[in-house]
Amino acid sequence: MATIIAPHQFSPVEDAEALRKACQGWGTNEKSIITILGHRNATQRKQIREAYEQLYQEDLVKRLESELSGDFERAVYRWILDPMDRDAVLANVAIRKGSLDYRVIIEIACIQCPEELLGVKRAYINRYKRSLEEDIAAHTTGDLRKLLVALVSPYRYHGDEINARLAKSEADILRDAIKDKALNHDEVIRILTTRSKAQLIATFNRYKDDSGTSITKAVLGDRADEVSVALHTAIRCINDPIKYYEKVLRNAINRIGTDEDALSRVIVTRAERDLRQIKELYYKRNSVKLEHAVAKDTSGDYKAFLLTLLGD
Amino acid sequence: MATIIAPHQFSPVEDAEALRKACQGWGTNEKSIITILGHRNATQRKQIREAYEQLYQEDLVKRLESELSGDFERAVYRWILDPMDRDAVLANVAIRKGSLDYRVIIEIACIQCPEELLGVKRAYINRYKRSLEEDIAAHTTGDLRKLLVALVSPYRYHGDEINARLAKSEADILRDAIKDKALNHDEVIRILTTRSKAQLIATFNRYKDDSGTSITKAVLGDRADEVSVALHTAIRCINDPIKYYEKVLRNAINRIGTDEDALSRVIVTRAERDLRQIKELYYKRNSVKLEHAVAKDTSGDYKAFLLTLLGD
Repeated sequence: MATIIAPHQFSPVEDAEALRKACQGWGTNEKSIITILGHRNATQRKQIREAYEQLYQEDLVKRLESELSGDFERAVYRWILDPMDRDAVLANVAIRKGSLDYRVIIEIACIQCPEELLGVKRAYINRYKRSLEEDIAAHTTGDLRKLLVALVSPYRYHGDEINARLAKSEADILRDAIKDKALNHDEVIRILTTRSKAQLIATFNRYKDDSGTSITKAVLGDRADEVSVALHTAIRCINDPIKYYEKVLRNAINRIGTDEDALSRVIVTRAERDLRQIKELYYKRNSVKLEHAVAKDTSGDYKAFLLTLLGD
Repeated sequence: MATIIAPHQFSPVEDAEALRKACQGWGTNEKSIITILGHRNATQRKQIREAYEQLYQEDLVKRLESELSGDFERAVYRWILDPMDRDAVLANVAIRKGSLDYRVIIEIACIQCPEELLGVKRAYINRYKRSLEEDIAAHTTGDLRKLLVALVSPYRYHGDEINARLAKSEADILRDAIKDKALNHDEVIRILTTRSKAQLIATFNRYKDDSGTSITKAVLGDRADEVSVALHTAIRCINDPIKYYEKVLRNAINRIGTDEDALSRVIVTRAERDLRQIKELYYKRNSVKLEHAVAKDTSGDYKAFLLTLLGD
């Protein structure tokens, strides 16, 4: 469930006018921008962008980029984009970083449903005139490349039907590979990248029943190489996105010097989806409300914006 | 350009009634079935199927399957399906064969545009409740699996923009791999499966300019292993589908005992697309009209149906 609170009735033209006003004159009225955009869902934001463009022959996204700055600007920029376009941007930023932040790629590949992933790939091509697959391939090497390209590529089955016999046999394959420390094995990659989410969860459950350990624990073991960590992330994203995101937030907040990139990413991308469940789990795990933790670690307009998206 | 001749005006209900009549009583009126279905395009055939279902609460495809037999039945069955659904069926038949007929998979992956390939993958999931990717992976092993899964998976960029510097550097990578007889190399697979068609054609042209041999010739050399042959097929499908299909037809007709599967596949899948160009090239290469060659090698209703699709 979503956390943002959007009105049923609203006027894209009035919002566009108010945003224009907030951007004009001496200084920007950040508060007004937060109040408006922080309370509009994806469809409404799109209508506002269109109304703004029509009224002022100007791109609202570009205008806001030039008016705002820092973490606040980045968060607003990501928020105002269409969700699939936003994921395309997040993926591109992750790819262009010196050392690729593959968590972002894995989240898109393993948490989004096949049609959403496809939408992100279309948006990526539209923006960059290259495919997501080829850009990932061009910026990675070796086993990590094999895994990441294979994760974003297929169009998986998205239904509920599972094959219990297959879950058993593929749990065995995974267990053997983990035992032999052969996580880069083609079979492991094939299973994790082509099977449906429902089938994989059945396989992971079977793994746990048969061996007494969860596959997430087993995969990582005492390994910390890139491929093991990436596989671990992929399995967690497939298995339980809520739990995964709670941990990302916890790490982003608890480390010395907040990880604003991760904080913004989770809040912005999940605010209209499952951020409420993530908040509940956060509270259960940390005995602190996520809003309070975020408020403590951030400041100014950035803080106000995140708290608005958190439904505070 | 298409070869089939379809009327601008037609009545789905009248066609459905005529087909019903052709299927009733003693013996089937194959001639009537050919006259109707052989002169209707994909949209019209769909409307006929829907009208038939409404009129008689019966699936026309199933009815025809039970009335017809042999090569004729198979060709009509493939023809009457929606093109993407038909490709899904062709892929599934190819996968389930004792030894997988990977030509079919490569044609779908390398000749169809990204949106069409995606449509086939959706149709496949719809029919079989599994993804095309996982079925190919489950029925192949080793390097061939790596190549085929990687060919059908990505959503490639489909625009015209190319990067000449990249074409040069990737032509070099391909040349080194061919020289080292390392066609199973991850780099070769990455290039062929993630780059856009336009980019790959630029790379192949660059290859020829730099080394004086076409990459199709170089890839095969004196090799006849599965992976080399599959790569050779993929490159030919990307490079020049018309030339590729002409050769498939030539081989299907010239071998001892016609290859009806290949013959039907090319004629049925291309009749509404580029069969006219394929016919022209066939005539140029063989000094025999394709219609005459097909007429000589086939008989009965099957022959009459193929000739109708060929626009004879």
